[in-house]
Amino acid sequence: MKKVKLKIPATVANLVCGFDILGMAIHEPYDEMEIRLLETPEVIIKHKDQFGLPEEPSKNVAGIVLLKIQEHFNLQNGFEVIIHKHIKPGSGLGSSAASAAGAALGANIVLGNIMSKDEMIHFAMFGEELASGVRHADNIAPCIYGGITLVKSTDPIDIIPLNSPDLFVTAVHPQVEVKTSDSRQILKKNITLKNAVEQWGNIAGLVAGIQKNDFALIGRSLNDIIIEPVRSILIPGFDDVKKKSLEMGALGGGISGSGPSIFMLAEQKETAEKIAALMKSIYDEMKIESFVYVSKINPVGIEIIE
Amino acid sequence: MKKVKLKIPATVANLVCGFDILGMAIHEPYDEMEIRLLETPEVIIKHKDQFGLPEEPSKNVAGIVLLKIQEHFNLQNGFEVIIHKHIKPGSGLGSSAASAAGAALGANIVLGNIMSKDEMIHFAMFGEELASGVRHADNIAPCIYGGITLVKSTDPIDIIPLNSPDLFVTAVHPQVEVKTSDSRQILKKNITLKNAVEQWGNIAGLVAGIQKNDFALIGRSLNDIIIEPVRSILIPGFDDVKKKSLEMGALGGGISGSGPSIFMLAEQKETAEKIAALMKSIYDEMKIESFVYVSKINPVGIEIIE
Repeated sequence: MKKVKLKIPATVANLVCGFDILGMAIHEPYDEMEIRLLETPEVIIKHKDQFGLPEEPSKNVAGIVLLKIQEHFNLQNGFEVIIHKHIKPGSGLGSSAASAAGAALGANIVLGNIMSKDEMIHFAMFGEELASGVRHADNIAPCIYGGITLVKSTDPIDIIPLNSPDLFVTAVHPQVEVKTSDSRQILKKNITLKNAVEQWGNIAGLVAGIQKNDFALIGRSLNDIIIEPVRSILIPGFDDVKKKSLEMGALGGGISGSGPSIFMLAEQKETAEKIAALMKSIYDEMKIESFVYVSKINPVGIEIIE
Repeated sequence: MKKVKLKIPATVANLVCGFDILGMAIHEPYDEMEIRLLETPEVIIKHKDQFGLPEEPSKNVAGIVLLKIQEHFNLQNGFEVIIHKHIKPGSGLGSSAASAAGAALGANIVLGNIMSKDEMIHFAMFGEELASGVRHADNIAPCIYGGITLVKSTDPIDIIPLNSPDLFVTAVHPQVEVKTSDSRQILKKNITLKNAVEQWGNIAGLVAGIQKNDFALIGRSLNDIIIEPVRSILIPGFDDVKKKSLEMGALGGGISGSGPSIFMLAEQKETAEKIAALMKSIYDEMKIESFVYVSKINPVGIEIIE
């Protein structure tokens, strides 16, 4: 196959208590990306969206990934990429990861499956590095593997795919700017051992709940006493959204990645949709534009649509 | 049943990276305990062992648990308890937890199953409090539930039973004294966020490995960069035992509870026995007496033998 069209899902990193290690693919929103193998060595990036992202390959998240693949495999071929981005940059829903993971997985397909999943993740991390300065895989891993993933280590790459519980996800993206670098800088460098122990009880509970499909356990493990209290200050309406979503029947939820998006898990579609309406109304009242998405946890990750 | 005889297993708390939250029951060593319901309200404790533990009920780990049960249920009955202790006090193999959990579970049987597992844990924690000053359930929980348990919270009690992987455990108890209170006091009160994130990657990996029966993942998750480097200083020979056990094929291991016992996991009985001989020879060479135990992870916990 010399050409492929992909559907690349948004992802929710951290999953509240799993800061820097957990991530989850969802169905909505998603990007579309077409990749074509060229006989000549150019890398051409075209964005068919309104976000004004740079198209010069070395400055583009998908582009840098392809350049690295080209260099590593000493390819004579190039790539033409057309990106229809729907996951808004800066949303905290893995927009840069979608470009990076899509480029790596798409290149792998048009090159005839020359890479393992972990190799694709290796190359995709160059895209994350370009976007945020940090080589992380919290969003890339669930994009490539689907479902919920544990990034046990990025050097060496050690990704553990977890179960994909049959749950609904409501995500809201309020139109406020939170820079990943800011939301990382405000974190305290030191924490108490007591808080760390409570946090790792929650992480252990969350992983056990995911593996046992114990939804109540997942819900009561979605607590973060270390990162959320600091980061949520940057997100207007956060406390209100969380409190009222839980009252409405959400299992739990919190900040998606470094924000400003917020996600909530629910067992029933009806609950997820009521939470979506609630989120919208909270931001309407605050006169903050917002986008709301309801979908299920996405067990497959990136899909080939053509 | 007015009388019961129990076999109560040793337990390994922490499981390296799961400080204060994880615990595992093993088959060897174990205590034996006979509990008889009395028509009169006395609580009588008799130790048929050489450890010189106090037999006055309010000063005895099993005794205090029975007094609390008697008080809570406003019982007119008393209990006579005969303890054959084989799990050495101060070994780090859950000796006090065995007395406490055995008393709670035994009382429940002779009283006609009036308590849930979590209620038994509630009462057994009074025994741990008497022994160490801390109401913890890391050792009690696997004694009562069997296998590997996650203590997500003790207030309220929230215990998550995990899988019980089909693995061998080698434990060595070198005859050196490490007081739980000392080994707790030398811990740093603050840790870096960076180390905490690495630790919770290991915990998440360990829980995922246990639930997936992925032995290699269990092995590479048994890393503790926070507690072990500090506590292992109190245990002579620790580094040597760990390094050589791993070279010999152990999946991983570390300090049992707060020490001085050390445990190692292995897939094959032969490996576990070779590790046992290795441990013995290391301490023989150091002129430190040691006791070595080889058994499997114990999926059932306390057993009724009569």
